[in-house]
Amino acid sequence: MNSENARIFEVGPRDGLQNEDAILNVDQKIELIERLVGAGVRDIEIGSFVHPKWVPQMADTAAVAARINPAELAGKNGVRYWALIPNRRGLERALEAGVTHISTAISSSESHNQSNLNRSIADSLADLKDSFKLARDHGCELRAYISTVFGCPYEGAVDFGRVMDIAEQLLDFGADLIALGDTIGAGTPPQVERDCARALDAFGPEHVALHLHDTQGLGLTNALLAWRVGMRQFDCAVGGTGGCPYAPSAAGNLGSEDLIHLFNTCGIDTGLDLQTLLETTSWLEKNTPIRSVSRYFQYRKSAAGSTL
Amino acid sequence: MNSENARIFEVGPRDGLQNEDAILNVDQKIELIERLVGAGVRDIEIGSFVHPKWVPQMADTAAVAARINPAELAGKNGVRYWALIPNRRGLERALEAGVTHISTAISSSESHNQSNLNRSIADSLADLKDSFKLARDHGCELRAYISTVFGCPYEGAVDFGRVMDIAEQLLDFGADLIALGDTIGAGTPPQVERDCARALDAFGPEHVALHLHDTQGLGLTNALLAWRVGMRQFDCAVGGTGGCPYAPSAAGNLGSEDLIHLFNTCGIDTGLDLQTLLETTSWLEKNTPIRSVSRYFQYRKSAAGSTL
Repeated sequence: MNSENARIFEVGPRDGLQNEDAILNVDQKIELIERLVGAGVRDIEIGSFVHPKWVPQMADTAAVAARINPAELAGKNGVRYWALIPNRRGLERALEAGVTHISTAISSSESHNQSNLNRSIADSLADLKDSFKLARDHGCELRAYISTVFGCPYEGAVDFGRVMDIAEQLLDFGADLIALGDTIGAGTPPQVERDCARALDAFGPEHVALHLHDTQGLGLTNALLAWRVGMRQFDCAVGGTGGCPYAPSAAGNLGSEDLIHLFNTCGIDTGLDLQTLLETTSWLEKNTPIRSVSRYFQYRKSAAGSTL
Repeated sequence: MNSENARIFEVGPRDGLQNEDAILNVDQKIELIERLVGAGVRDIEIGSFVHPKWVPQMADTAAVAARINPAELAGKNGVRYWALIPNRRGLERALEAGVTHISTAISSSESHNQSNLNRSIADSLADLKDSFKLARDHGCELRAYISTVFGCPYEGAVDFGRVMDIAEQLLDFGADLIALGDTIGAGTPPQVERDCARALDAFGPEHVALHLHDTQGLGLTNALLAWRVGMRQFDCAVGGTGGCPYAPSAAGNLGSEDLIHLFNTCGIDTGLDLQTLLETTSWLEKNTPIRSVSRYFQYRKSAAGSTL
């Protein structure tokens, strides 16, 4: 990683779409993924292998994976196609589908883990240890989200020491990277600066990513401050899709358009072409019921002479 | 000014409402102003004395001023009630209405000044010199906006040296304070840091304010970076009202709720009570056609158990 670059991880087709009311079909998902790759995205989460009863938006992830050329799915074109698994059963389905880049989730607050994954943190860690071994045996790369790191919808404040403990265990189990998830966008600037610096110092910038939501409006501010303390890997979602299950009208994932625009204005190279990205968001709005909440997209769309 | 405080200047009843399609009546404006003062606002722009043909939303500013107790209008209760004037004729009307805190406007780009004020920058400066003398003779305090300081909708980039020259002249003419106006929210973080530091260094933090718009999504990020280089006076508008005439669906003024929330999370005291402010925004939505675009208001309004 060049010190003036940021590595962007696009979560829209997974963390974005899984919280939208509208369900895209496989053709729409494939076109979205191809357009994002065309905009320069090199890491993209294409879906998740969760039970369709819980997340019907992701029921067809195996079909999506099947539509991607197997060599490409294995990262041979320089693009890494990731899928999220909730547990060992999900991993088995992902492996059957040919996925080689695996994301996993665990919360840093007990009640959110219970609500989201229906088990204790200890049980999640035991399952992940087992799953990571199986995934490693299949040559997979592993990304491990830790949710609610800056605040929990049920418990409020979260002790970041607990996040550090869980991160250390996940890295010991074989995770390549920890994604610090601000699930409800609760992180404050001083907190994000302090805690990111701590994680970067302990694990190194190649092993830590920041997964922000713009729920409370501080997403971009937190992203830039994290960059300034050395964070170099950032998640975002096309259109700012995803919303927030705990505040249904609030904004969702940090919008890719907003993040790339911010980084462009600061001279930080992301490898993405903002105009192509904006055209992708426009395509999404014109061809699906999804509406973008990204501020920069809204600005560019309504500016005089816009073709978006 | 205590070094850990920020002075907040509420522009919603003027810069917010003047760009909304809905026109509030005098009763609504007075209730909005009283609620904002109740939330702790100590500087508030109550309207402008522009020709109603150009800005019908502000046609009744004299009637609004007449509804405020004369001693209070003169700042005797610790609240400063400001009104914007476009030229000497507007000033005369403001003085007739008993207003003692006067804002003025000029652009740093020739074509925006021509479009907005229908005259050249040189002619605007000559009028302001004359107006400032008259206002001073009446004991008024003077706030001078310079528009388009970080970018112009017609000319694009603006030379900040030109902004500095205009600011110096306005201070020489008797302005108490220069408000650096990012009219289309075009300021980038490196630009805002660099240019604010330059203005603060030349004129001192007591003589400079930052007037941000969130049009392109960078409002909060720019506000925090400006704070960190020493800016201590910030404009914002209840509800993020105002929109952008050059991009009609984009966000408007930096929302007061978003700015106060940001500053609260950073331990910066503004003197405002965020909950009372949010209730004011909620009142505005429930009693007028205006809808807030402030992210933090949207979050709090839709969170479980909200009474907003």
